[in-house]
Amino acid sequence: MTHREMHPQRWGDPAHATPLPDSSKELVDLIFGANDTPGAASVEVPASQLAPELLDSLAALFASPDQVLADDETRRLRTRGKSTPDLLKARVGDLSDAPDVVVRPTTHEEVAAVVAWAAEHRVAVVPFGGGTAVTGGLVAARDGFAGVVSLDLADMDRLLSVDPVAMTATFQPGVRGPAAEELLAAHGLRLGHHPQSFEFATIGGFAATRSSGQNSAGFGRFDQMVVALKVATPIGDLEVGSSPLNAAGPDIRQIVLGSEGTLGVITEVTVRVRAVATETRYEAWQFESFAAGQAAMRHLAQRQLLPTIIRLSDEAETAINLASQTDVGGEALTGCLMIVGHEGDRIAPQVARVAEELTALGGTALGEDRGQSWVEGRFHAPYLRDSLLDVGVLVETLETATFWSNTERLHGAVKTALESSLGEGTVVLCHVSHVYETGCSLYFTVAAKQGDDPLSRWLAAKAAACDAMMDCGATITHHHAVGTDHKAWLAREIGPVGVAMLKGLKASVDPAGVLNPGVLIP
Amino acid sequence: MTHREMHPQRWGDPAHATPLPDSSKELVDLIFGANDTPGAASVEVPASQLAPELLDSLAALFASPDQVLADDETRRLRTRGKSTPDLLKARVGDLSDAPDVVVRPTTHEEVAAVVAWAAEHRVAVVPFGGGTAVTGGLVAARDGFAGVVSLDLADMDRLLSVDPVAMTATFQPGVRGPAAEELLAAHGLRLGHHPQSFEFATIGGFAATRSSGQNSAGFGRFDQMVVALKVATPIGDLEVGSSPLNAAGPDIRQIVLGSEGTLGVITEVTVRVRAVATETRYEAWQFESFAAGQAAMRHLAQRQLLPTIIRLSDEAETAINLASQTDVGGEALTGCLMIVGHEGDRIAPQVARVAEELTALGGTALGEDRGQSWVEGRFHAPYLRDSLLDVGVLVETLETATFWSNTERLHGAVKTALESSLGEGTVVLCHVSHVYETGCSLYFTVAAKQGDDPLSRWLAAKAAACDAMMDCGATITHHHAVGTDHKAWLAREIGPVGVAMLKGLKASVDPAGVLNPGVLIP
Repeated sequence: MTHREMHPQRWGDPAHATPLPDSSKELVDLIFGANDTPGAASVEVPASQLAPELLDSLAALFASPDQVLADDETRRLRTRGKSTPDLLKARVGDLSDAPDVVVRPTTHEEVAAVVAWAAEHRVAVVPFGGGTAVTGGLVAARDGFAGVVSLDLADMDRLLSVDPVAMTATFQPGVRGPAAEELLAAHGLRLGHHPQSFEFATIGGFAATRSSGQNSAGFGRFDQMVVALKVATPIGDLEVGSSPLNAAGPDIRQIVLGSEGTLGVITEVTVRVRAVATETRYEAWQFESFAAGQAAMRHLAQRQLLPTIIRLSDEAETAINLASQTDVGGEALTGCLMIVGHEGDRIAPQVARVAEELTALGGTALGEDRGQSWVEGRFHAPYLRDSLLDVGVLVETLETATFWSNTERLHGAVKTALESSLGEGTVVLCHVSHVYETGCSLYFTVAAKQGDDPLSRWLAAKAAACDAMMDCGATITHHHAVGTDHKAWLAREIGPVGVAMLKGLKASVDPAGVLNPGVLIP
Repeated sequence: MTHREMHPQRWGDPAHATPLPDSSKELVDLIFGANDTPGAASVEVPASQLAPELLDSLAALFASPDQVLADDETRRLRTRGKSTPDLLKARVGDLSDAPDVVVRPTTHEEVAAVVAWAAEHRVAVVPFGGGTAVTGGLVAARDGFAGVVSLDLADMDRLLSVDPVAMTATFQPGVRGPAAEELLAAHGLRLGHHPQSFEFATIGGFAATRSSGQNSAGFGRFDQMVVALKVATPIGDLEVGSSPLNAAGPDIRQIVLGSEGTLGVITEVTVRVRAVATETRYEAWQFESFAAGQAAMRHLAQRQLLPTIIRLSDEAETAINLASQTDVGGEALTGCLMIVGHEGDRIAPQVARVAEELTALGGTALGEDRGQSWVEGRFHAPYLRDSLLDVGVLVETLETATFWSNTERLHGAVKTALESSLGEGTVVLCHVSHVYETGCSLYFTVAAKQGDDPLSRWLAAKAAACDAMMDCGATITHHHAVGTDHKAWLAREIGPVGVAMLKGLKASVDPAGVLNPGVLIP
């Protein structure tokens, strides 16, 4: 069995814990000073609040007593997600958002039964996939509810069917990234969705949050891969997806995608799949400036010449060598580093054409070494965050997206907001992680001194950054989702009519309001 | 001034009326027999039902009296759309669905004022773009309303702005296809959206109905081009579109797109644009069978090798030479005709690669003549329909989409349903008009004897075809939208939970239910 749950205070599999590379230690000392701040040794969860008779009626929905767990350890490991605020709270022993009980359904019918039971008894239900949420999507409101159930989908981990003609595959929602690829590889297929949470995040979570992966330039976002969904709601089952795309009213799939468990629990996801790549090539390129690198990305995107992967670090991120996560602080380039990846078959013409365009636009080819090093370290960052938190560095990421004509303003505004809020010694790094014809996402990594109250320091800085995004007319989130943390800014982004639409949807399928209450909908 | 309105009984600009080509006459005589059935000479509209005091308060919202028109001629030309049932009704003098008054706003504020006025006075509002609807989207319910206003957006015909960096353009909703391309061409840009209704249909209509154009393989559907929208609703304005795509909850843009005027009136549409193509090449290819041609399309789509345009006629459509609309019934091929179009710059490598793949998959290259002939005749079909209706042939089109593994079943089932319903002498033709990695659309053209009651004959046949689509698990519409005609089948397609979602959305933004009542929402 692969490691199934993450440490309540840390990211990922303990076996993969990443001590600070020597190259980084010097940097940390230099900027932040050494200041060991390990987590509290013991982290207590509050006692379960669910009434015994409710627990009994819940247990009666399941075949096995193993599927309904109210012990401390199980509840501890389903408490919140993995944002820095989540980790900071856990590190000081605050697990006040622990669910009262964890259930582990294996079928759609069990999920539907839990949802109906919850609506009847006014119990909040929090769908739980990989537990990788970074915007508070696992923190349901307690007020007015008889309790909180964590609906852990980890045992719904099967590949239900493959259609090799249509090139689609139907998954249960609890299948994790690596398992999805493994199950598909047996058919010569792949999904090609690699967000940084890949090792733990699940198919259902990808769908519920509109996830976007590192090869989005070639594969699109997860919401662009989904062709059909099965969803359990309090008013009954929803099954949608009768064709690739259509004109049959607003696309109901696009209403479920991004709904973060507030409209229903996704129990089946049918996605487009592709043949396993027979050729891959990962290259590094150097550009004089962030603007020059972005101009090159834009040029490729607007001519339909995008490779499978394309990313661009700004000058600060390039200087700290963040793209090579096993060697952060190591020997770095000047200017801006671009990673370009090609995956497919017969990729040579595309490789040559992209290289020709990038060269013409001022890029310098650095060969494959740094590209390969990015591939190898690409899921390391969250481990590195724990090591930095351990030594007194406050570190977190946030992201947004905008149109190409607005990226320079947005980059400057978010950076300034973070630096102003966190004060001297703050390091703000940025890269373009996802590219479209009309714009791109900006992904920021922030490091600062923790100070006496790192949580409050971070929440103030994050609010300032979010305000800056709104002031620039950008989105509050390109791929991290809304959760509880972004709700106030979502209201600004979509306005009162957009909020009314979300509330109308919610009222139509979850009149009791038990599905992930307090999440997403302002 | 270009011809602005269509004849109440016919498609398009009278100057472009297409008499039956000689090549077709023989065919028509052979199959259906000659039987002249011209439309009624005079078509009367019922008197306007709107109370004078309501007409006065409506007129007070506008700067000029020319913007509020209740004369017969104006109302006649805003009655229904251009489906064959619409034309058959108009031909026998039935214009019972005429609006009571037509208003012509020029600004967002005027549209918003009309929407608020309608909600206050419980008057139905039907947004009217090009009047090209073919599924009853312009036929609002009268029951329970004080009247019906046609909100004609034709005077909102400006290109508001162009962002040459992000490559986006913001249009008012009344801009027609050719005008949009003309306005963009002045900036070296193009939209690249060419549905068959192109000459009359508008930007707002493309958005409200999720239109898909003939070059969808290269440009995507219209809903994939839209990046921002401004919408007037009874509860206020909605402005969405802060980034290309994002994870900020369900995408509100995708709720407005396809809403067919039931959730709000679209007053601004920002779309992705591209550089004008410097090279084009249109080719014809021949395949042994519909299955072989589809396999080739699927092969290209699943390897990301699609050209800008790709279409495939089945054996019957190929035999009647329908793809060459100025020479229908003329010299035809055996097997199945495929049209392949490349548009862009430096297209040679793509042309060569596609040709290599198609040849390897059994295709025979026929050169450019038949490809060019398709391009030249591609907006002719609706004119031809009028000429066929004139000589006693019942002719109409319908369309659906499904996954590749289901196309053969769907093709057979719809064809059988139409032939069984319409009886001997019925001709059913089909082509694949839009292609995705996971599936495609099927577009059917049906010709049969009109008989004594052509309208009833057609409605029965259409219902049988729609039932067949549902029985096959396909969509009720790939790009014609739902309107009033497809509502019953939409309810089957999205189920009671999907319907509840649409009703919840409607109630949230249009509590009085005045926006296009009776359309879309089951």
